[in-house]
Amino acid sequence: MNTRTAIPTEIIAIGSELLTPYYQDTNSLYITQRLNDLGLSVQFKSIVGDSPKDLQSSIKNAFARARIIFATGGLGPTEDDQTREAFAEVLRKKLILNEAVLNKIEHRFQRRGYEMPSVNIKQAQVIQGAEILENEHGTAPGLWLETDGRTIILLPGPPHELKPMFEYFVWPRLQKYRTHHVERRVMKIVGLSESKIETLIHDLYPEDPSLQVTTLASPGQIEIHLTSHSLRSSEEAMTNLAALEKGLRSRLGENVFSSSGEELEAVVGKMLREKGKTLSVAESCTGGFLGHRITNIPGSSDYFIQGIQAYSNSAKNRLLQVDQGLLDRRGAVSAEVARVMAVNVKSISLASFGLAITGIAGPAGGSPEKPVGLVFTALSWTGGEEVARNLFLGNRQAVKFQSSQKALDMLRRHLLKLETG
Amino acid sequence: MNTRTAIPTEIIAIGSELLTPYYQDTNSLYITQRLNDLGLSVQFKSIVGDSPKDLQSSIKNAFARARIIFATGGLGPTEDDQTREAFAEVLRKKLILNEAVLNKIEHRFQRRGYEMPSVNIKQAQVIQGAEILENEHGTAPGLWLETDGRTIILLPGPPHELKPMFEYFVWPRLQKYRTHHVERRVMKIVGLSESKIETLIHDLYPEDPSLQVTTLASPGQIEIHLTSHSLRSSEEAMTNLAALEKGLRSRLGENVFSSSGEELEAVVGKMLREKGKTLSVAESCTGGFLGHRITNIPGSSDYFIQGIQAYSNSAKNRLLQVDQGLLDRRGAVSAEVARVMAVNVKSISLASFGLAITGIAGPAGGSPEKPVGLVFTALSWTGGEEVARNLFLGNRQAVKFQSSQKALDMLRRHLLKLETG
Repeated sequence: MNTRTAIPTEIIAIGSELLTPYYQDTNSLYITQRLNDLGLSVQFKSIVGDSPKDLQSSIKNAFARARIIFATGGLGPTEDDQTREAFAEVLRKKLILNEAVLNKIEHRFQRRGYEMPSVNIKQAQVIQGAEILENEHGTAPGLWLETDGRTIILLPGPPHELKPMFEYFVWPRLQKYRTHHVERRVMKIVGLSESKIETLIHDLYPEDPSLQVTTLASPGQIEIHLTSHSLRSSEEAMTNLAALEKGLRSRLGENVFSSSGEELEAVVGKMLREKGKTLSVAESCTGGFLGHRITNIPGSSDYFIQGIQAYSNSAKNRLLQVDQGLLDRRGAVSAEVARVMAVNVKSISLASFGLAITGIAGPAGGSPEKPVGLVFTALSWTGGEEVARNLFLGNRQAVKFQSSQKALDMLRRHLLKLETG
Repeated sequence: MNTRTAIPTEIIAIGSELLTPYYQDTNSLYITQRLNDLGLSVQFKSIVGDSPKDLQSSIKNAFARARIIFATGGLGPTEDDQTREAFAEVLRKKLILNEAVLNKIEHRFQRRGYEMPSVNIKQAQVIQGAEILENEHGTAPGLWLETDGRTIILLPGPPHELKPMFEYFVWPRLQKYRTHHVERRVMKIVGLSESKIETLIHDLYPEDPSLQVTTLASPGQIEIHLTSHSLRSSEEAMTNLAALEKGLRSRLGENVFSSSGEELEAVVGKMLREKGKTLSVAESCTGGFLGHRITNIPGSSDYFIQGIQAYSNSAKNRLLQVDQGLLDRRGAVSAEVARVMAVNVKSISLASFGLAITGIAGPAGGSPEKPVGLVFTALSWTGGEEVARNLFLGNRQAVKFQSSQKALDMLRRHLLKLETG
């Protein structure tokens, strides 16, 4: 849905560090997301250093193109911080020292037992006619200024100052520019390739421009971002979104593991908790990454018993009682070894489930019969087990991620089957 | 060193996806790094969608400010790809179909058994007077055009196409704009806070503007980026850099673990390999993350024997033979339990070293005596052991990282001592 024609909106990110190889402007992604929620889209972004000339040039150009202009950064106390001055200059407005703001800054220093350095005085200067946006997490207040048919919003650069200021003081003021009610959802999918998903759902892509479907693919996981706009109400946007999601789900089935932002390890953890089940893992090529993901979830100690990183053959033999003869005969990277690892880690730890991974993460160690990326994943439960042979593409990290993803997904699908009978 | 006055340089990143909340312009960081290597700095960056009007406006503004202009993206075959057309329009130059380029694109499709779709023809259009930059990894060639005292470089958006094109075809052509020879180094530091480092080295900050020192701090690791410029030669830049690094090292000592980009797990792995030593780990709150880091290094199977993620108390007792009485008396998060975990994982696995981590990663599980972030790390070697009590700040992930960092660093410092005495 092209909402550009609504109200042209631009973002200027200010700071010479943003012109180095080290820093990205991440604030604009956040602001863009929130503007999109109002039906506004960003038409142009500029990134400029602390030269007053360049800064003024970018402000003038933004004025020529846009009606809403965000500027982030350059509100600090140093000489390099020229945002207030540059806007005042371009707008031909005065900077006026605001006593209330000055008192607040002085107070902030006093609370910590310091006297305010004199350089900070300039942070209390307010462009004539601007409203002050309070900064609860720093000294520089933001400014909201409506002039010459433009709305200008100056925000501090540090994200932990910008975000709360945006939510508390900018968001309510932006409501008058709302053109749409927007609802979003992210469906996360495992076990299908991007092209397979395309085949399954392409005829469901909505012709209605108020509904958008964007697919983001990475090895081991696909996300489908759904956006629904309504001119009337958020209820309408939500209803249309729900209908679209229902249609997609009917095609993608249980390959969708989450539509509320949760990662796979959180979904599996929740299922284990609900069913009162426990899990142990045995890892070779992932070297602890599966356990790491499982324990990234707060409270995972309720269902995660233990993990064994049996990296060497001797460890597989000693810690997991994998028979040395089997290791010699089939090799550590084999379906049989994966199966025994899963069964034994379950029985050793008295867990409800055992998950095991053994494979070749690369870049070395591959052979024509057992190439880099060959990974066996196994699940053991009381009464049975399942082994999968996988051939993953990508570097060492990508193979580790896909391996852990496959193992978690085997458990998830097994737990789903328990549910449905 | 302000190199701006040398040759004003800008980057225009083109693509409507770069105006969504989902995509960052990462190409410009890469280009900036390489321009900095020549002594050129980037003065301005614009991010623009596929509207021809906005695109032309950004090109005109860049023309007014800059002498070297990079544009990335928008060279694809679709109607939305308007970069060539917009530059031709602003420059009042013709687009001419280049038969050699067209043949190459057709060939690329034929090799894969397809016929070239007719939309791809436009990718063979070349702005009058431009040199062609070959694309070894995609269909769209880049263009290099010198006109009106400006140099314009059009590059494809996908990083895997842009980077090789830049290195092979753009880098040699850029040499004539070289104003400086630049050398860089990154010193990585563990075990000192940012303010402590500041105290140790502040009097060494070079007054010579040809030397730059930039500190980037994150929990558990500090990086000091050194840059040396020379008008004369890269040898001179290197000599000055080496002298600066030597001075900093004399203050920071063995807290510097790398100055060639290597991560801590790589440095420790190398030391273990060189000394023919082996390692096993026992993890509680890190849940596998330490093992994951160690096994991220290709060839780590040469020195990493095994890891035990003893997440539950029963696992600590069963797998690591931590006495149940000790667990009851002191609690799982205690110096004594960390010590026993390290000693036992070493002896069980017959490794040269045992590393252990037990703590409270949060957000829940803390108490006044044992707050969130309290972590004990322990190292065991033949003949002794060492335990550290740490109180880490930050979220669950940050605590996990700092814990693994501290454990690896204890082993690194022990291995260093073996070397020097």
